[in-house]
Order: sequence, then C-alpha cells, then structure tokens
Amino acid sequence: AFLRSPRCSALHTMGGGSHTVNTAERLQALREQLSKNTVNAFVVPSEDQHSSEYLASCDERRAFISGFNGSAGCAIVTETDAFLFTDGRYFLQAEQQLDKNWTLMKQGLPDVPTWQEFLSKRLEKAKIGIDATLISASDAETLTKSLAPKESELVSLPHNIVDQVWKDRPARPANSVFHLDVKYAGQSHQEKIEKVREELKKEKRKAFVVTMLDEVAWLFNLRGSDIDFNPVFFAYAVVTLDKVTLFINRAQLHDEAVNTLGDTVDIQPYDAFFDYLRTLPDTLELSSDSKALIGKKASLAVADALGKDRYIIDRSIVADLKTIKNGVELEGFRQSHIRDGAALARYFAWLEEQLNDGVVLDECQGADQLEKYRSELDLFKGLSFPTISSSGPNGAIIHYQPTRGDCAVIKKDQIYLCDSGAQFLDGTTDVTRTWHFGTPTDEEKRAFTRVLQGHIAIDAAIFPTGTTVLTRSSDSWARRPLWQDGLGKQSPSCFSSCHGTGHGVGHFLNVHEGPQAIGIQIAYNSTPLKPGMTVSNEPGFYADGRFGIRIENIVLVREASPPNNFGNKGYLGFEHVTLSPVHKKLIDTSLLTGQEKQWINDYHAETWEKVSPLLKNDPRALEWLKRETSPL
Amino acid sequence: AFLRSPRCSALHTMGGGSHTVNTAERLQALREQLSKNTVNAFVVPSEDQHSSEYLASCDERRAFISGFNGSAGCAIVTETDAFLFTDGRYFLQAEQQLDKNWTLMKQGLPDVPTWQEFLSKRLEKAKIGIDATLISASDAETLTKSLAPKESELVSLPHNIVDQVWKDRPARPANSVFHLDVKYAGQSHQEKIEKVREELKKEKRKAFVVTMLDEVAWLFNLRGSDIDFNPVFFAYAVVTLDKVTLFINRAQLHDEAVNTLGDTVDIQPYDAFFDYLRTLPDTLELSSDSKALIGKKASLAVADALGKDRYIIDRSIVADLKTIKNGVELEGFRQSHIRDGAALARYFAWLEEQLNDGVVLDECQGADQLEKYRSELDLFKGLSFPTISSSGPNGAIIHYQPTRGDCAVIKKDQIYLCDSGAQFLDGTTDVTRTWHFGTPTDEEKRAFTRVLQGHIAIDAAIFPTGTTVLTRSSDSWARRPLWQDGLGKQSPSCFSSCHGTGHGVGHFLNVHEGPQAIGIQIAYNSTPLKPGMTVSNEPGFYADGRFGIRIENIVLVREASPPNNFGNKGYLGFEHVTLSPVHKKLIDTSLLTGQEKQWINDYHAETWEKVSPLLKNDPRALEWLKRETSPL
Repeated sequence: AFLRSPRCSALHTMGGGSHTVNTAERLQALREQLSKNTVNAFVVPSEDQHSSEYLASCDERRAFISGFNGSAGCAIVTETDAFLFTDGRYFLQAEQQLDKNWTLMKQGLPDVPTWQEFLSKRLEKAKIGIDATLISASDAETLTKSLAPKESELVSLPHNIVDQVWKDRPARPANSVFHLDVKYAGQSHQEKIEKVREELKKEKRKAFVVTMLDEVAWLFNLRGSDIDFNPVFFAYAVVTLDKVTLFINRAQLHDEAVNTLGDTVDIQPYDAFFDYLRTLPDTLELSSDSKALIGKKASLAVADALGKDRYIIDRSIVADLKTIKNGVELEGFRQSHIRDGAALARYFAWLEEQLNDGVVLDECQGADQLEKYRSELDLFKGLSFPTISSSGPNGAIIHYQPTRGDCAVIKKDQIYLCDSGAQFLDGTTDVTRTWHFGTPTDEEKRAFTRVLQGHIAIDAAIFPTGTTVLTRSSDSWARRPLWQDGLGKQSPSCFSSCHGTGHGVGHFLNVHEGPQAIGIQIAYNSTPLKPGMTVSNEPGFYADGRFGIRIENIVLVREASPPNNFGNKGYLGFEHVTLSPVHKKLIDTSLLTGQEKQWINDYHAETWEKVSPLLKNDPRALEWLKRETSPL
Repeated sequence: AFLRSPRCSALHTMGGGSHTVNTAERLQALREQLSKNTVNAFVVPSEDQHSSEYLASCDERRAFISGFNGSAGCAIVTETDAFLFTDGRYFLQAEQQLDKNWTLMKQGLPDVPTWQEFLSKRLEKAKIGIDATLISASDAETLTKSLAPKESELVSLPHNIVDQVWKDRPARPANSVFHLDVKYAGQSHQEKIEKVREELKKEKRKAFVVTMLDEVAWLFNLRGSDIDFNPVFFAYAVVTLDKVTLFINRAQLHDEAVNTLGDTVDIQPYDAFFDYLRTLPDTLELSSDSKALIGKKASLAVADALGKDRYIIDRSIVADLKTIKNGVELEGFRQSHIRDGAALARYFAWLEEQLNDGVVLDECQGADQLEKYRSELDLFKGLSFPTISSSGPNGAIIHYQPTRGDCAVIKKDQIYLCDSGAQFLDGTTDVTRTWHFGTPTDEEKRAFTRVLQGHIAIDAAIFPTGTTVLTRSSDSWARRPLWQDGLGKQSPSCFSSCHGTGHGVGHFLNVHEGPQAIGIQIAYNSTPLKPGMTVSNEPGFYADGRFGIRIENIVLVREASPPNNFGNKGYLGFEHVTLSPVHKKLIDTSLLTGQEKQWINDYHAETWEKVSPLLKNDPRALEWLKRETSPL
C-alpha cells in the first residue's frame, strides 16, 4: 500500500461507482436544518471525529449527502446551492455520481477555489455551520482568520445536521475489544502511560488528550474491529499526571480486557468524553502557563471543550512513542512477515499454475485466493487494506481496486501487480510484487529493473542520524534509476509516481502510520528516521493505460555500522522484513551493478531460508519458491 | 572554489590575521558623527553598494572600523559601545583582532542575538543610522518592521560616516574597461537589451535597474578589473523600454568600448545614478500599476530613489538571462577548460618531480608555479579566485588560503588539495584536484573513492526538466557514497561538508554566479536547472586536523536523451568541461561498480585526447598525463 502525495491524501476506500443518488429530498431536509440553526451554509468534510484515514460507514456523511463516494472531497451546502469539491483523481467519478442538485468544483484546475477559498472569497457576512468534531483545531483557526475580511464566521452547531436528516444512517460499530497480550505488545499499558507522563513532565504539560484511534489502541494494548482493515475501536483517552481515563462503550470491552486494565484506568462512556474535557481546566488548574497538550489532528471540539489558553497544539506524544517499536514488536514484524511470505509464495505459485493451465480468473478471484492462504496463517486477524490485484492497465491506476463481479481477467501476457497485506497479532504486513506470467517485453523488463534498482538503493541506504535529509532525498534515490531511463512523471507534487516512496506502518495497527515517511513532501521533513521505526520501501513506475510496476518491502530502521563513523551521532540503515521473491524474469541483468546482483541473490537466499520451512505441505509453492529464489 | 552554506556565506577574501588595530581614535571620531547626525547607533555591514561577494579595499569599511578583517561580520557602534557580530568560522580571528573597545558577539551560540535581533530587542526608541546603499531594500523592510515594537527606527544618513572618519581610505578603483568581442560573448549588447525589454513587456514593467556589477558587465559586453579576481567595474545601468543608460566613470572606458556601445547607450557618470533614478517616476510615468523592477539585492537607496509604490522587487531579469549561456559561451567554456587542463598537467607534473627530487616547496610557491603556467595560456586574463593550495590538515580548513611567507610546506606523504581557477576571454575555470605524492593510507583511499563516487553520481545524473528536486536531492546523491562509509558531518545546515555540492559559474565573469546551484539550501529550490547553465560539481570530505578531499569539475547542463522520455518535459544531464586526471593512486577500485570504472576510463581517455596536443613542448607533463590517464 502506498501513501498518497498531498493531492492524493486519502486511500480510496469505498470502490468506484457510477450510480447517481437523487439528493433532492435530503438536500431539502438539510436546508430546513440550515434555517432552524440560522446558518447560511453547512460544511460536510470527509473526516470522522478521530481524523481516521478509513471511515466506518456511519461516518460517510459527505458520501450520503452528495452521492459521491470517492475517498477525498468536501461538500458545502448553502441555502440555494450545493458544491462538491474534489481533486483530479475523482473528477470522472464525481461527474457520474453527482445529480443535478450539485455543482462539481474541480480543485486544482485554474480559477477553481479550494473549499476553504470558496468560503472565504465567495461568501459574505455568512454564518457557516460546521460540526466542530470534524475539523481540526488548527485548520479551524486558519479558516476563521481567512473569513474575517468578508465578515463571515464559523458556527459550531450542537448536532451534525447531516445526521439529523440521514434516516437510515448505520449505527456506530461497537465490536468487541480485546487485550493484546504483552508477549505481542512488548510493553504493558502501565509502562506506556508512565512514558507519556515522563514526556508531559519534560514539556511541562498537565495532560495529553488522545484523540486518534490507533493511539488509544496502542496506549492500552487493546484492539478492536470498528473500522475495516484497522484493528481499532471508537474511543478517546486522557492521560494526566495522576489519572488515566478511557472513554469507550463499556459493552465493547472483553472482561479480560477490563481486568487487565485494572484499577489504574478509569473507564467512562465514549459519550462522556467532551463533558469530562470541560471539567479539566478546573480539576487540573489549567492556565496559560500550565496547559493540556492536544495533537495536531485533535478537533476544534476538543480545543473548545478545554477553552482558550488552556491547551496547546503540538506533536502527539503517543504518536512519537508508538512509532518507535520495541524489541518484541520488531521481532513480531520479522516473524509475521515470514508467515506472510509463505502465503504469498502459495498464492503466486497457484496463480502461475492456473494461468498456465488456461484457467480464466479475474482480479477478485486472485485476491480471494490470497486472502484464503493468509487466513490459514497463525495469528492472522484480517487484511490490513483491500488487496490491489491488478492486471495490465489496471496496475497503472494508483488507487485501483477490483470490483467484485466487474473486474478484469488476469491475463498471462500482461504485467500483474499485487499490493496486499494482513493484520497479525504480532505485526502488520504490506507487500507489493509485480509479475509477468508470459513473456515480458524489453520495455517492461527495463522499467521493472529500474524500479528494482531504486528499491535496492533505499534498502541499502546508510545515512546520518538526526537529519531529515534522508526522508526527502532518498525519495530521489529511489527515482534516480528511473530518471536514468527517462521514466517518471514530472508534476511538482507528483514527479515520478503519485505516491511517496514510503509510509510508516503500525504494529498490528493501521498500515499507514505517521509521522515517519520517505517522500518529498514538506510535512515529512519534521520527522527524522529513528531506530525502531517501520516504513515501507515502495518505488513504482506507471505507464498509463498499459502497466504498473511497484516493488514494496517493509523495512525497519536500525543503527548501521559503516567502516568509519565521523560526526557525533552515528549512522542508520534499514533491515527488510518482507520476504517474497522479486521476479527474476522481469530483470534486465545487463543494467545491474555487481553490488545490485549480490543484493538480489542475498535477498533470495534469505527468503528461501526463512520461508521454505513453512511450505512443507505445499510442494507446488515450495518448488516455485526454489526456482524464484535461485541465484541470478 | 565552493559556495558556502548560509552560515558560511562569503568567501574569506582578505586572509587571516592576528594583529590588533587600536580603534579608539576612529571610534571616537565616528561617535562625533553619530552626535552630529543625531543618531544613537550606526550599522556597518560587510557589503558594498552592489552586493558584491568580493570587495574593493575602499569598501572594506567594517574591517576598517573594527580591525576585524574576516569576510563575514557586521559592526554596530553606539554612543557607548561597539559590537562586532560574526559566526563560528571567525570567532578565533575576531578575538585576536578586536581591541578592547569592541565586544565580540558570537552569532550562532545560545542566547547571542544576530545583529538584527540585537537592534530590535536590545535597543529602545533608538535612531539607528545606516548607509542606505549598503542594505538591500527587502532586508531593510524586514528590519524596520522588527524595530517598531520598541519604537526604534532606521535613519538613512546622507553620507557614510565611516568614510568621513577614514582618513587614508583608498580611492575607488577606476581601472580601464574594455569591450568583450561578440566572438567571445556570442551576442551583442543590443540583442541582450532587446531580450531584457521583452521580459519587461511580458511582466508589464517600465524599467529594470541593473545594480549587480556582473550583470552590468554581461549586459554591455564590457569587462574591467576593479575588484580582484572578478572582471567587473563599478557601474549601474537602467534599461527602459526605449532608453538604456550606463552609469560609469567615462574615463575608465576604452574608446573602442565607447564606439561599440554606440548611440543607443547613454553614458552618464557613476555618481549621477541616484539623481537619474529620482527622475524616473515622472519621465516614465511610474504608478502602482506600472512600476520599475529592481532585483532582490538592490539597495534601499535604489528603492528610496524610485519612491514607494513605484518599484517592485523580484528576480533579476539580467541574472536569469545571463545564467543561460549561449552556444558561443558554452564553446568558450569547453575551449578554456582544455587550455586550463594543460596548465594543470604542467603544474602537477612539475610538483611531483620537485617533491620526488626532495625540493622544499611551500603552498604559496606551488600556487605561484600554477599561476605562472596559467598566465602563459592564450586568452588568460587572471585568476578567478585566490588559489587554495593546501597540504595535509590545511586541506580540511574549508576557507583556507596560504599566507605568503607563513604557510606550510607541501609534504610528500600528505594529501595535497588544490582548488584553483582562471579568467579567460572565452570562459572562467574552477577546478579542484586532490593528490598524494607518496603512499596514501587505506583510509585516505577509501575516502577519496567515496568522494569520487559522489562526483560521478552527479556527473552521470539524469533528471526531469523543470523540477527543483535535482538541485536539492543531487546534493545527497553526491553524499550517499560517503554516508555508506560513515563519512560526513551532520549539523543541520552543514551535514557532510560545510559547502554545497555546486555553485553557478559566470562566463568570463564571477566564479560564483547565481541563481543556479546544487545544494540543500532552501534558496536554491526556486531555480530549476536549465540547459545552458554552468555549475560546479564538487563533493568533498574533510577530516579535521588531518586531510581534505575535494574533486571539482565544471559541468554544463544540457538535454539528455534517455531511452524513454515519459512525461511532458524531457530530461536533463550534465557535460563536464574540466579536463584533469583524477588521481588513480587514491582510488580503491574494489569499491567501484563497473559503470564507475568505465566512467573514469572514459573521462581519462577524453582528457588525454583533448589536453595532450597542448603539451608538445613539455615532455614531463606529457608523460605525466599519459600515465595519469591510462586505463584503470
């Protein structure tokens, strides 16, 4: 899986679609709510109240009100008009899905405002209704300032008025939540809480408000399934210097989880969170010198509940702790990736045989078979994202997902790109391999080899500790071999492929985890890579309408031991944990250096050594792995 | 030569020094001027009125008033105190040179303000005298804003009061100025002026005010020698849509130069420049819709003469035209570098023989011999910067310059680093080579090889047009081989060596030319590399107290023809013009890829082919070149 560039910020989670919803009735109902609440407009962003990347269906408010169900977009409904703002990836889908009540605003085209610019420039003296739980405090601050010149203002409504007109809105998921044993987590929740407190003391803060779902899950060693692919559950938490409160529907918690949390954690209802926040300024004696800390993605509602000058927005303490995996978590990454490698070998061997036998399989049938093999693995808990199983031109569509019953057949004479991953109790996997089951063209081999050289450049990188240079520059290291052949697109934000070279990965948590990443975006520059971080290494090349190539491993950041060690901080490098052959048939060996050939042979020998013991009962996969991992 | 990182912004031009000047008398005289002009302080920056990198001695006001003659620093004299602000490179020298009347402000240390912060935070209700010709309009604007909270203000004095107390101030140089034939310049001044006007029309501006000395020289195809190493002369110019005025001391101009300029250029005295500017708003009917353009380095005095809302500060049109060399200039670069390569071969062959013969030579004697060989070359017009001839530990001092009569002996068993260049009518050279005339250690060879690999990475780079990614990232491409061995420093602004990987180079003009460069500084990000630009490729590694290694070629940016050409803009690469062997004895071939070995052999074959014909009369150099360019 890959993290999109800023213009491609969220994964497409709901599949494409071309059916149109008649929104006349729901828009009319919403406008009655505008009038009731004496506002002139209402903003419906894509986010949920935890700033999640993937949404539960009850939180797909923008899709409901507009009919457009792409992953990125913002709807603004005024007394007379309705606007849907989205970016270039979704113009076609939005045109197909929006009915005549909506005006599509194609963000990125000349003279088309962003939704924020629209509010500040096209409206005057407007009261703009928002749900303060769905906009971050810092974004709201920026927006409020930009509205001032035309005397407009944001108005936080007491209820989300989309919810009030959404008759058959699904219930919020409330699936069971279990305790992740310390043998997988490596650290008790008490130890983690103590570390949070140490940071609070260092920074002279009185509390940290935990708003992101994966942060709550990590902090308490709890896992759930309220959002597809992400083992999280709806909850908030507050850590003060002497108290910890977890806000969750008590009914979701396994008894064993409650027991493990013990007396030190006060469990309160999910809905009691904001009332509790409002008591904090008094109980903690918050002041402008002594504030509560909230993360950069915490909502305006959180900030408002604490009150002006009682909070500070800064890096999330929990995110910064969570991103450095402990030894047990790192070993879990290694072990889960070995098992995952066995499922991949079984799948690719099976697929090759099917295609050689002339069986007609579509992309979903491929994905299903891979999921079947994964589901048989120890400690398997589900997929970590929807499998991208793509044949030929579909591989060049960055956010492609096959639609069941309406997807392409996997063709033997086309490149097949498969990006997939799983959740295990001991780790999260995310791997892309690119295959050709017939005879690849020279062009395809050359492009694959260039991507592979970029992949190796990152894998073998050694770089000084403490600089953020690597997080930016290594992106170009991965692209350099492609540029050498004139491969790569060139728009400023998307100059080779529309995704960064790497994203952080959670430990049995979200497959996309911040703040670490490898890419050119400015946002990545504030987080240097540190030992214990986990990131993907996934350069790619995409020939529109023809094929896509991506080679993705998960790598762990670790200290390196170069021959010298000048400077005062040492050096870092990577350890790959993903173990699945890179397709030798697609390699043009004439382009490789001796060191690159050695890397490939070493990688394959390691893959054979670690994965083959798990394939005793699948002779087809074993034979396939032997062939695919033999030396160049 | 190398461009310093922002903390090391100017070349050290005046040599080190430890003698102290008694400044009591001149400070007293200056304070009388403070009182006469009713100001509380006076700021003495390092710059001249053209924002030149190198200064004429008459402009070394800060060195005069403070006694500190390092290249970077700012003096502030108040009614009771005198402060000298400089950075870490100069703390020692400043401590030695400043007398007891001065307080040294060590910028960069904790709690030490910059001189701007000092003015805005430590003074209150102060009238701060400045010479408006010595501060840029944009810097002055920033400074004025920062002074407001404490009610201080900048006061432009009618005369520079340092000049008034500087009794034996040298006269401003007024050396003769000659016309550079179009056979070298490639384009007449009329054509250049027309191009400036085209840009003015495109940008809807009525005039461009040319304030940088190299820009004036380029625009009129004139060259002079008012500043050491830079073939420029003191002048300003103004180009309007129908008039061109050159402000220069008429006496400096060769008759032939006056004839070539012809009727189309109005020649006015240098001192008439500001009066002329003051007439422009009327004669050109400047208004807030119709402004004159001034470059980002134009002084506050220029802005004030035009008047508020009558000018706009933006990129210099002339700098942007000048940086793209025409075909004749590019060919001149090639030819001048072949000749330069002959002088280098003669020098290095001579030096090797001298050292083998046991002759004791110091670093200056080496530099002198190289200058002698260069001075015998066709079209030679002088050096392009003071030769850095450095033995052993001196090579690790980034801004090292040997002091005549007080410099180290060149030792046969130490690394010798030589960074030098010349001005020719047809081009400017700048080359660094690193040698060992005895037996290098494995460590030295390994470091040299890593630097060479970085050099090759840049030389062979191919990158998409129109992105600025290369200008930043390629810097890390050059450092990657060093990091692989743990070589490289790591401070945020200076993470491997205290200079960028490359600077722009003028055509028979300043050896440091903006705006193009290769480096990590943000400032470089606004100028993508374009065909026709000339930059240096000079990665280095510095082992403090032991040795320095740098390998520098000048490269021309040109279109590349990779096998594919995806995307809409094409690809760029480099053509090296510097031709001097890289020292095979210092190469650890076991570290090299096959492609790198091929690069070295190809480069040496080209060097032999192009340079050897010029060495017919120097058998020693010819034999040396044959040996040094033979295949690995």
